[in-house]
Amino acid sequence: MTMTDPVRHPNGLTVLEAIFWSNCPSRYDLVTRTRFSKSKVGSIVGDLIDEELIEEGSVQDSSGGRRPTGLQLHRNLGYAIGIDLGVTSVTVTVSDVNFQVVASSTTETDVRVGPGPVLAIISRSIDQLLKEQTIRRSQILGIGMGVPGPVEFHTGLLINPPLMPNWEGFNLREYFAESHSAPVFVDNDVNVMALGELHHRRSNGDSDGNENMIVVNLGTGIGAGIIVRGEVYRGADGAAGDIGHVSIDPQGPRCHCGNTGCIEALAGAPNIVREAVAAAEQGISTILQDLVSTKGQLTLSDVSLAARQGDPAANHVIQTAGSRVGQVLASLVNFFNPSHLLLDGPVAYMGPLMLASIRQSVYARSLPLSTRKLHIDYTQLGTRSGARGSTALAIHQALKQRLSQ
Amino acid sequence: MTMTDPVRHPNGLTVLEAIFWSNCPSRYDLVTRTRFSKSKVGSIVGDLIDEELIEEGSVQDSSGGRRPTGLQLHRNLGYAIGIDLGVTSVTVTVSDVNFQVVASSTTETDVRVGPGPVLAIISRSIDQLLKEQTIRRSQILGIGMGVPGPVEFHTGLLINPPLMPNWEGFNLREYFAESHSAPVFVDNDVNVMALGELHHRRSNGDSDGNENMIVVNLGTGIGAGIIVRGEVYRGADGAAGDIGHVSIDPQGPRCHCGNTGCIEALAGAPNIVREAVAAAEQGISTILQDLVSTKGQLTLSDVSLAARQGDPAANHVIQTAGSRVGQVLASLVNFFNPSHLLLDGPVAYMGPLMLASIRQSVYARSLPLSTRKLHIDYTQLGTRSGARGSTALAIHQALKQRLSQ
Repeated sequence: MTMTDPVRHPNGLTVLEAIFWSNCPSRYDLVTRTRFSKSKVGSIVGDLIDEELIEEGSVQDSSGGRRPTGLQLHRNLGYAIGIDLGVTSVTVTVSDVNFQVVASSTTETDVRVGPGPVLAIISRSIDQLLKEQTIRRSQILGIGMGVPGPVEFHTGLLINPPLMPNWEGFNLREYFAESHSAPVFVDNDVNVMALGELHHRRSNGDSDGNENMIVVNLGTGIGAGIIVRGEVYRGADGAAGDIGHVSIDPQGPRCHCGNTGCIEALAGAPNIVREAVAAAEQGISTILQDLVSTKGQLTLSDVSLAARQGDPAANHVIQTAGSRVGQVLASLVNFFNPSHLLLDGPVAYMGPLMLASIRQSVYARSLPLSTRKLHIDYTQLGTRSGARGSTALAIHQALKQRLSQ
Repeated sequence: MTMTDPVRHPNGLTVLEAIFWSNCPSRYDLVTRTRFSKSKVGSIVGDLIDEELIEEGSVQDSSGGRRPTGLQLHRNLGYAIGIDLGVTSVTVTVSDVNFQVVASSTTETDVRVGPGPVLAIISRSIDQLLKEQTIRRSQILGIGMGVPGPVEFHTGLLINPPLMPNWEGFNLREYFAESHSAPVFVDNDVNVMALGELHHRRSNGDSDGNENMIVVNLGTGIGAGIIVRGEVYRGADGAAGDIGHVSIDPQGPRCHCGNTGCIEALAGAPNIVREAVAAAEQGISTILQDLVSTKGQLTLSDVSLAARQGDPAANHVIQTAGSRVGQVLASLVNFFNPSHLLLDGPVAYMGPLMLASIRQSVYARSLPLSTRKLHIDYTQLGTRSGARGSTALAIHQALKQRLSQ
């Protein structure tokens, strides 16, 4: 594969990025998106095709022939590996450069056991998926990975990850470089989810790429991914979006970070389960009591189930958590005035009551102007945002790196 | 004056902006800043000089001759008018396009009386300053204005301004268009302060323009101006930074916005004075008691004075306000991970105890990673940030408008 000459293509990356963010755009679409002239787009597209960076896309029509649909990244660019590492599981996805998933697998694990065993699982998953699809390592364009902790993006190092203490300073890039020649890009998991959602919306035409969005992940941890003017916003140290340790109650429970009343300690999955168990033990809820005595413990799904069966205690637990989350998000809405506040993660998916409680709490506490155009909803991708985002991270960054070489 | 042809200068604006943000850069500086080639910069600079958009700057040397220093905006571009409208006063500044203030005046007023009387004062000030300096209206490049309320930037309309109820929907651009042909740009006052501070730091070389900063104005109202990647961030509706109505105490006093315990109701200037008066009335502080009985009322300066004289009640009032402000700012630091948190406004300038209380409160409540590189300080420009910012708004937007025509 030839390398693109940056002097010959000062605007090649702009066109390539426009194709990355679109779904098979025509040359006309590219003129609109890049604001370059028709002849300039034509010339750059010609060069990018010659260099096998892009190609004409095509679909099979009803007669069995193929008809052209627009431009897409060239299949010879290969495949991307997306690694979506959560606190309790990891999903590895292999996709072609136009986001067609060719294989994927999810494995239960626990990041708290440290990098050794977790990375062994990931490496095995990658090898197995590639073997099944007969894809060679040399065909990998890039590897993207989301991790549940703060990441210094330009080095890929984890910095002070509260939920991943054994991973501090671990060099994920060097680890993968031992077995892969493809470049590796690492980011915080919620940043990756936000990137995935943004890519999904832009390539669907649901976004012009200028929106300011906050994606909020509600799970064991609580964090936000921030999109400013169509780009992931990481802040001065890569810590932006680290809202789990905003304190909403100075008299609240002590958090693992050392402070008291953090939103993560009050509305994270473990505390929701803890409050439901307490309700069962206090004899307030027969449904929860029965579940505990049958199973010996409770999960988030049990609490959702009890709430859907009309159990007042379970409903109260969910409403309280939603109201607390909304309290923190209302401050962010006043400060950041986003167009979209998108919820994701197992706590968000506990049911419509959770979404309603969060919405109600945000609207009650925000200024009318800040919520005039605000959409509060689930991410469109749901649980797939991490897989899509880590894939988008791999492809986008690998293309940028290649064209700047 | 000839208009710049945008086809001939697809990159003219980039070079012009690099000069705007710098202090008399050389051609070599421009190559570094724009990343254009030396010959490209040379050619664009030549064209911009021919069109009298820029000129060689010069300083008088000790022998009385003039020696060249670099490139600056052309003096024939004229003058900018900056209007910094606060809740209780307005400052009008006339500057040349290279930010040399040629005249300025400040008048006491109260925005709550409505646009009629306030704008009459502003118009009179402008006319008088121009007359004194024998500057004609046709020499005005642009007018920039900061107002203490949310502004829809692309229309210049005030939207739901809590402190300026009579100004809702008032069209400031149309008002000034009746007497001025220069374009008028209106923004929220704290956004304007943030722009002023950014321009000051960039042209001093104290900023590379990529910092993420929050400028917090603490006065009658409380608001923030946000800089993302060297640009003012306004959010989806122009309401970004509207942090005055973040509630920190559900049991707190009712705010004029309708909610309870808003930071503006608790740490805005009127409540600080109210708490000091209460301390005087309760006989806790003899210094404050004496001040009230002598003057019949108290001001912020009285409270500062009492604190500096060691009065425990006045110190307590300031510390409480600082701690409350810090509580809100800590959440923003966790969310936004800025490199700079810069304080401005009369409450911030009450004295070193206020700054210390805010700092202490932010550091105690933020994550270590978010504060690793964080600078918490006053703005470098102090009370001049609004004047500088409204001038920068006028020049920057007028140049952008002219080159895109």
